[in-house]
Amino acid sequence: MSRATTALLDADLNMAESVIAADEQIDALRRELDDLSIDLLARQQPVATDLRMVVTAMRMSADLERMGDLARHVAKVARLRYPNSAIPPMMRSTVLEMGQVAERIVAKAGSVIAGKDIDSALTLERDDDEMDRLHRDIFNMLIDGKWTAGTEAAVDATLVSRYYERFADHAVSVARRVVYLVTGEWQTGHEPDDDDEL
Amino acid sequence: MSRATTALLDADLNMAESVIAADEQIDALRRELDDLSIDLLARQQPVATDLRMVVTAMRMSADLERMGDLARHVAKVARLRYPNSAIPPMMRSTVLEMGQVAERIVAKAGSVIAGKDIDSALTLERDDDEMDRLHRDIFNMLIDGKWTAGTEAAVDATLVSRYYERFADHAVSVARRVVYLVTGEWQTGHEPDDDDEL
Repeated sequence: MSRATTALLDADLNMAESVIAADEQIDALRRELDDLSIDLLARQQPVATDLRMVVTAMRMSADLERMGDLARHVAKVARLRYPNSAIPPMMRSTVLEMGQVAERIVAKAGSVIAGKDIDSALTLERDDDEMDRLHRDIFNMLIDGKWTAGTEAAVDATLVSRYYERFADHAVSVARRVVYLVTGEWQTGHEPDDDDEL
Repeated sequence: MSRATTALLDADLNMAESVIAADEQIDALRRELDDLSIDLLARQQPVATDLRMVVTAMRMSADLERMGDLARHVAKVARLRYPNSAIPPMMRSTVLEMGQVAERIVAKAGSVIAGKDIDSALTLERDDDEMDRLHRDIFNMLIDGKWTAGTEAAVDATLVSRYYERFADHAVSVARRVVYLVTGEWQTGHEPDDDDEL
């Protein structure tokens, strides 16, 4: 997603193509992880914590695969508008920030997965709030009556903003699944699925 | 989704509220189905076809739950713009058709689940093509330079159109999983995830 953001803001076609191509690797890894999970269920017949771990892995693989799709979608918007940038100047800094928050969220979700670091999962929820705020900022820019970049750019910005927001939701969902696995308690305070009021 | 379409086109606030409230029932059913699946895995330790069936049920429950979210999103757009309709007159017939295609797709996916009716799954792919065509029609209306309904309406239309398109994708995904369960072969010709080029 970090590279997709660069592709989008700099109208970098090579970068966009590389993001689009890389999504296939994520899809392949997801299939591999799912096959491995089903194989484990069949051969080892895990129970209790082991069973929960395998089921969690399958659900996380679905979230991670979807995050790859969303980065690819951002890259496709960049490619579609090349050699122009899909993002008008007034919106650049907000989208840049969305990219940075996405990068931070992914890094934290990765460290939660690797080390089962629950504290990191808690700060991740705050990053997700930040992403929601940026998402609302984009919508406010679109509808405050001062939008002069045209309808096509508004359509692009609407979709791109939603892709970032969904990306963050899936990363938070991944981290929550790990927390649930470790503690047996589901974090509250956030809806697990998106619930944006535009 | 059918009721959400009515709420959207008729600016029917009660209908919108009922769709939003009903999504909670879908979420509860999803949790129930997932708990049942994990319980089955733990107690019965299924292998081969039985194992594939339980894993398929868990994946389908995720798709169906998401379809509920998407209908709720459409209803929320209706509620947000009440007492106006979020959909400008020039776009009504296309959105109406999207609602009808969504209804047809859900009915077919239901009959595929109930009867493992593979022929119905094949025609479902065509319905999904129809939905993709309507989705492109909406985008073309937005960007052909003749859009006069303003940026806010463009944002609504962009999101609503995407909600319908994703809803159809998830329904097709549900049907494919059943076909895969029955035949052991994954249907090709469609990407399982969305791949809209705007």
